[in-house]
Amino acid sequence: MAGLGPGSLLFVILLGMFILCRAKYEPNWKSIDSRPLPDWYDQAKFGIFIHWGVFSVPSFGSEWFWWYWQGKKLKPYVDFMQRNYPPEFQYQDFAPQFTAEFFDAKEWTDIFVASGAKYIVLTTKHHEGFTLWGSKNSWNWNSVDIGPKRDLVGEMTDALRAHSSLRLGLYHSLFEWFNPLYEQDAHNAFRTNYFTSTKTLPELYDLVVRYKPEVLWSDGDGSAPDTYWNSTGFLAWLYNDSPVRDTVVTNDRWGFGSMCKHGGYYTCNDRYQPGHLLKHKWENCMTIDSRSWGYRRNAPLSDFLTIQQLIATLVETVSCGGNLLMNVGPTHDGRITPIFEERLRQMGSWLKVNGEAIYNTTAWRAQNDSTLPNMWYTFRPQENAVFAILLDLPNSGWITLSEPVGTPAKTQVELLGYGSLQWETGKPSGLRVLIPQLSFNQMPCQWAWALRLTGAT
Amino acid sequence: MAGLGPGSLLFVILLGMFILCRAKYEPNWKSIDSRPLPDWYDQAKFGIFIHWGVFSVPSFGSEWFWWYWQGKKLKPYVDFMQRNYPPEFQYQDFAPQFTAEFFDAKEWTDIFVASGAKYIVLTTKHHEGFTLWGSKNSWNWNSVDIGPKRDLVGEMTDALRAHSSLRLGLYHSLFEWFNPLYEQDAHNAFRTNYFTSTKTLPELYDLVVRYKPEVLWSDGDGSAPDTYWNSTGFLAWLYNDSPVRDTVVTNDRWGFGSMCKHGGYYTCNDRYQPGHLLKHKWENCMTIDSRSWGYRRNAPLSDFLTIQQLIATLVETVSCGGNLLMNVGPTHDGRITPIFEERLRQMGSWLKVNGEAIYNTTAWRAQNDSTLPNMWYTFRPQENAVFAILLDLPNSGWITLSEPVGTPAKTQVELLGYGSLQWETGKPSGLRVLIPQLSFNQMPCQWAWALRLTGAT
Amino acid sequence: MAGLGPGSLLFVILLGMFILCRAKYEPNWKSIDSRPLPDWYDQAKFGIFIHWGVFSVPSFGSEWFWWYWQGKKLKPYVDFMQRNYPPEFQYQDFAPQFTAEFFDAKEWTDIFVASGAKYIVLTTKHHEGFTLWGSKNSWNWNSVDIGPKRDLVGEMTDALRAHSSLRLGLYHSLFEWFNPLYEQDAHNAFRTNYFTSTKTLPELYDLVVRYKPEVLWSDGDGSAPDTYWNSTGFLAWLYNDSPVRDTVVTNDRWGFGSMCKHGGYYTCNDRYQPGHLLKHKWENCMTIDSRSWGYRRNAPLSDFLTIQQLIATLVETVSCGGNLLMNVGPTHDGRITPIFEERLRQMGSWLKVNGEAIYNTTAWRAQNDSTLPNMWYTFRPQENAVFAILLDLPNSGWITLSEPVGTPAKTQVELLGYGSLQWETGKPSGLRVLIPQLSFNQMPCQWAWALRLTGAT
Amino acid sequence: MAGLGPGSLLFVILLGMFILCRAKYEPNWKSIDSRPLPDWYDQAKFGIFIHWGVFSVPSFGSEWFWWYWQGKKLKPYVDFMQRNYPPEFQYQDFAPQFTAEFFDAKEWTDIFVASGAKYIVLTTKHHEGFTLWGSKNSWNWNSVDIGPKRDLVGEMTDALRAHSSLRLGLYHSLFEWFNPLYEQDAHNAFRTNYFTSTKTLPELYDLVVRYKPEVLWSDGDGSAPDTYWNSTGFLAWLYNDSPVRDTVVTNDRWGFGSMCKHGGYYTCNDRYQPGHLLKHKWENCMTIDSRSWGYRRNAPLSDFLTIQQLIATLVETVSCGGNLLMNVGPTHDGRITPIFEERLRQMGSWLKVNGEAIYNTTAWRAQNDSTLPNMWYTFRPQENAVFAILLDLPNSGWITLSEPVGTPAKTQVELLGYGSLQWETGKPSGLRVLIPQLSFNQMPCQWAWALRLTGAT
Repeated sequence: MAGLGPGSLLFVILLGMFILCRAKYEPNWKSIDSRPLPDWYDQAKFGIFIHWGVFSVPSFGSEWFWWYWQGKKLKPYVDFMQRNYPPEFQYQDFAPQFTAEFFDAKEWTDIFVASGAKYIVLTTKHHEGFTLWGSKNSWNWNSVDIGPKRDLVGEMTDALRAHSSLRLGLYHSLFEWFNPLYEQDAHNAFRTNYFTSTKTLPELYDLVVRYKPEVLWSDGDGSAPDTYWNSTGFLAWLYNDSPVRDTVVTNDRWGFGSMCKHGGYYTCNDRYQPGHLLKHKWENCMTIDSRSWGYRRNAPLSDFLTIQQLIATLVETVSCGGNLLMNVGPTHDGRITPIFEERLRQMGSWLKVNGEAIYNTTAWRAQNDSTLPNMWYTFRPQENAVFAILLDLPNSGWITLSEPVGTPAKTQVELLGYGSLQWETGKPSGLRVLIPQLSFNQMPCQWAWALRLTGAT
Repeated sequence: MAGLGPGSLLFVILLGMFILCRAKYEPNWKSIDSRPLPDWYDQAKFGIFIHWGVFSVPSFGSEWFWWYWQGKKLKPYVDFMQRNYPPEFQYQDFAPQFTAEFFDAKEWTDIFVASGAKYIVLTTKHHEGFTLWGSKNSWNWNSVDIGPKRDLVGEMTDALRAHSSLRLGLYHSLFEWFNPLYEQDAHNAFRTNYFTSTKTLPELYDLVVRYKPEVLWSDGDGSAPDTYWNSTGFLAWLYNDSPVRDTVVTNDRWGFGSMCKHGGYYTCNDRYQPGHLLKHKWENCMTIDSRSWGYRRNAPLSDFLTIQQLIATLVETVSCGGNLLMNVGPTHDGRITPIFEERLRQMGSWLKVNGEAIYNTTAWRAQNDSTLPNMWYTFRPQENAVFAILLDLPNSGWITLSEPVGTPAKTQVELLGYGSLQWETGKPSGLRVLIPQLSFNQMPCQWAWALRLTGAT
Repeated sequence: MAGLGPGSLLFVILLGMFILCRAKYEPNWKSIDSRPLPDWYDQAKFGIFIHWGVFSVPSFGSEWFWWYWQGKKLKPYVDFMQRNYPPEFQYQDFAPQFTAEFFDAKEWTDIFVASGAKYIVLTTKHHEGFTLWGSKNSWNWNSVDIGPKRDLVGEMTDALRAHSSLRLGLYHSLFEWFNPLYEQDAHNAFRTNYFTSTKTLPELYDLVVRYKPEVLWSDGDGSAPDTYWNSTGFLAWLYNDSPVRDTVVTNDRWGFGSMCKHGGYYTCNDRYQPGHLLKHKWENCMTIDSRSWGYRRNAPLSDFLTIQQLIATLVETVSCGGNLLMNVGPTHDGRITPIFEERLRQMGSWLKVNGEAIYNTTAWRAQNDSTLPNMWYTFRPQENAVFAILLDLPNSGWITLSEPVGTPAKTQVELLGYGSLQWETGKPSGLRVLIPQLSFNQMPCQWAWALRLTGAT
Repeated sequence: MAGLGPGSLLFVILLGMFILCRAKYEPNWKSIDSRPLPDWYDQAKFGIFIHWGVFSVPSFGSEWFWWYWQGKKLKPYVDFMQRNYPPEFQYQDFAPQFTAEFFDAKEWTDIFVASGAKYIVLTTKHHEGFTLWGSKNSWNWNSVDIGPKRDLVGEMTDALRAHSSLRLGLYHSLFEWFNPLYEQDAHNAFRTNYFTSTKTLPELYDLVVRYKPEVLWSDGDGSAPDTYWNSTGFLAWLYNDSPVRDTVVTNDRWGFGSMCKHGGYYTCNDRYQPGHLLKHKWENCMTIDSRSWGYRRNAPLSDFLTIQQLIATLVETVSCGGNLLMNVGPTHDGRITPIFEERLRQMGSWLKVNGEAIYNTTAWRAQNDSTLPNMWYTFRPQENAVFAILLDLPNSGWITLSEPVGTPAKTQVELLGYGSLQWETGKPSGLRVLIPQLSFNQMPCQWAWALRLTGAT
């Protein structure tokens, strides 16, 4: 070390500072919760959730099939099995039929891109414990050993990165309904760690290191405390040392009581839709098939949300500061069925016209309007533009937005995809906009329409 | 016979007359072709075709799967089998997987009713030879012995009659690709009748007697002459003596060369759309999935016709004097998938508004218009109403119909679902109609719009 | 015909005579029954019966599985299905599992040769109606279309002829439990012929023409009269015109009441063993597995006859003028299991020493002996040799045969496989033989021992 | 505790000594190897080995099927899979077909009892890693979760104890061919313990505690040192603290290099037969099907050892101080096939006559005889009886045993099952016995014969 010059010294000091800076998150919630959410996530607004697994084989009722059948013994599930399968047939016997022969990750990616989504979240392991990659800790209960005999997570990851700019998110369930080691720990009131040390934690690290997800979507705490799951320990590693430490986001499902309170963004409940602005970034995860996350063969058309409902949900969610994570359930043989594809492409066609009112926006000071129902505001700071998104469009004539304040010389109002609209100051306040009588062919889009107000406050 | 009284004589005379009256059709084309088509069929206009069978199990490529795979040995089919099945797997091995566990004929009926269709046509036996009822002549190759273990034709028939006024049509293929008795007859240049006497004919009679169909949709002559199939003999029975002799209609696929020439209504080719009026009643049978009649798992959304395309097809077909028979392909487990259901319900929603321009109409003197493209005429004699159905609606303003002639005092023009429109006499001829500027919410329907002209000629 | 020379005339005369000679059997029992049995059959004495079919898949209880399960609904069969299969599983669903992947007709032939048998009889179609060859009249219910996808009858035939001098016999069931055409005919009190004209008779002719069997083993008249089966018509063809008319033998199961009365040799009942000499040639068909003809997975060792029992049966049968047809049941995957192979090879090892007392023999004037129990006589006319076959061998000492009469100067007694024995005239009659004390290693064979008496009467 | 008398004090002292004595084995080979083998094992002499697992489903070639197919890619295995299974079929897909529907532990027990065996050893987990009980550490790869859905080890254990006095032995493979955690440890040169800590060791403890085996038959060290397996640690627990510490025996396969050197009795190699006396107790484990431990559908009769061969093996083994562990391979559906049952019952019939020369014997000073080939000695100290077991029996006459020394007044010679034999002193030494000429019916048994010499030295 003799002859170490001042440059070297500086380097050492900087390196030390760097290391100190780097390892800044400690394994406690106070520290973990202090991490700012990487920007990309709030800008993305819209992602696709994908629930795929062995439950896609019976594809009956719900992705909670196993639990409803053998845990709760619900009649429709028990009857379905009795009518169609041999007496000794078990859930595990479905796994060989999870064939995925039509799965083409490139095709899926094309559909996701067309939907206007900016990220996806794939179930790498649901509560059934079956992993969609060749986990060493899930021998003979993963998609490489049985069923598809393919690394589904890997194929999806590769196709996404090769053919799109969508970001990869991975869903992971902490608990597993029927894993005997989990049952043993639960029986021991979570004072033992047979399950976490041999399954949960090795798999979580493996997922991050192998696939480098930018969303890690945790679920299923099984009412066990985060200390059992060692969640803060894992998250400290994820934030400090993992290969995705700079861009990864996580959610809030990391142990009993952590939901809506700790972690990354909040999910609170499934299909969470507060209806007002939240201070903390949140996500509304919901399903196109209104009754199931997994593919359900017995879903009639009436169970699928219409595109109007889906766009209304997106608009309200974004207006209130949330992201929308919209779920599709692929089939056991690897297809996204046409009804899902149609909804996704319809969403994309709407976003093509109205994306400006969604992506990269923030919540505005008001979310909706006291006088005009079914209208939601967003705000785009870069352009100082307020967007008023109308879920119902009047035939024609003046409508009043009671919240914005216009300035005659400066303020301009535009219907996205159409052009400028006439406006005037409202009385006693607000701003009146003249909706022209547009015939069918002149409409810029269907389902919802966005007004851009620039120069307004 | 001694002592035969006058009463007996009268009885004998009446019986003879009855028989003469009844047995009016003779087993030759001249006589068969002379039978008038029962009225209901032309009035119905719109039916649903259903292709269902063992081919719904691989549900790959086409309902001609077996032929393409083992007859023509087309690469995609050969590859599909090699990649996914054991070396010795044969088409027959698919039959046990034709499970139909979700098949509910009542649900199907509800969807068909909602579509606005007036009849259905179900494949009771496609070229694979597998019968969807328990045919005695198809032992162990029918849906009662293997696969569903149910009388699918019977269940559909019963539900249709219990829950709707739709009429029942049954599709039946004369030939069978791989039936060894058919192959033997073919090898003998159709001079033997091993196949027809033990399979085709007994099954045709059985179908009619058991299920009393009002459409008998024949297909697949295998290039054999109608004399081989004994078609005129069968049809004479069908028209003279069968339980449906008064209302049954048949098509024209009864032997080599009979298509578009003999039988009942003409089908000519699949997806037949002449574009002009035909003198003989005809039917355009076509598919929602543009590439297959049977369910195809590997069909992306883009292969499904849009509702606009489907309505345009209906309108053109009806205008030119045809009926539309629109095909859906159910799955091996008995479902009509949501994308099909959506198209059918969209069709129904359009017909709810515009049914007046379709049902019970006849072709008008003109079918389309020399000046206005994408517009088709129909005519409703009862009301002396001409309908002009526009596939494109101008934003607003005057349009000219060059064919109709209006009379100021008498003629009235109405947009179905909206109300009266202003009109004036065209120059040098025709009739000008003012399309009002209708906003989105004021539109009576989407996809196509019908003008009713009364008092016009 | 002008200029027909004397040579031509002679030819015509000879041809006419030939035809007259040939077509000598008429389609009535008197004529049919008058045909002498071809010699080879009585000389052969010992054949192997093979029951193989779809019943070999469940291989539970009996080859009558289908009937016991769904016809008679016997509890063990109903329970077996309920415990192990889905609710809708039908017998037909077993067919794809009839795989025969280990079937090697050459291996079977080697075993049959080693057993000492001179002919085999293979079930080409049992009462289940499934044919073990690609019958055109049994489409999709035969071993070429489903299951093995092989011509099992053809492979067996070829191997037998290529590798042995054993003669081929084919078993064929007239009726089929559940064939709907048979059921229809039965319902019509056998006054219709839907079944016989399309299934039974075409297949019988096909079998004979294709495979040229030398035994045609008919079974299963279903209580229908021989006139329904057209048995005499078929047999007249078989005896007059078939390719095997000179050597074929048949049995007596050709219609209700024909058993033990008409046809070729008599079988009377299964496991027929009269215990005394019959005038008409007969066959004792019986099974190594004492409770089933088809393979039975649930057969314990105690259900298999011992080699002692089998040899005793052979000896008694031959002594009383019968042939023994001993049954083995191969597995669904085409194996003759080791326990069957062992019994067959043991039989062969015994026949290697004692064949002289069995093959080409006839019944003697006495069958068994009034003084010596468990002893049976046979006679070999070529050598004027009487054989006394002892099922029990005394330790040593003199035994008395009360029937034969010896002449001191001429008569010789030999223990087959050992050599000459000392004898003397019995008192008051018969013949006394001295059995030497043979140690274990000196015994010529086990299980039964034959004395050859030449020069005796 | 006041008034504690001297008796109490003594009790406390004795208890302390007992505890000290109990925990006497330390986790090192020297200490482990010092434990005397419980007496029962050497007295038992004859056990039944049972190889059962997922390999019983393909039941082709060998129980090493998985390794030969996918590890070594041997042609017969690769071909078998290509000919009979879909391209993506994996070994794991066999597991659901391991059905065991005919498994009746009571029936097996009856057969084992009839064989004369005194203990059984069942494969609870072979190298495939599939456990035949519901191991928590082998979720979804055990017989309770998939395949039989039954605790096979438990059922066997219960039946054995309820219906016999046979002792229970459990086979357990340390390594698993394809377990990814084992592969990881192997890749790390066995310096990590992912596999042992989560699979091997928890399962070993679980097996012992749950089923209380009296033989723990370890196998499959995978060339890893015993330190990796923590073998001495486990064995110290087994010998000191397990519920079977007093009676359990183990073998010598506990790590690379331990075979024939450390542990309990020696097995050295499969089918080990040294031919001379060993100082250390050993066991000859061998198979009735000479080419496989697991059931092999493609095994012809000629691959099964004859009962002569099996008895010869037993006799030589016992004479040289070993135990015989004779293997049967049950089928995937839970049967011991008749050929195995026959061999076992034949063995039992021989032991019924000759058991005195086998059970509870020790090796004698000589094992075989210099003058009489195929003869083996055993010794029964309780009765001071020497047994000479002859695999060949001369027809009759004097034979010379060169090793024993008789005393005219004291020595008696008996043929077991028959009675006394005449003897005289041999020259120059030994003892001459007169074998009487026994006819077939007088033989006490077949296959081998035992002379008991009392009063000889």
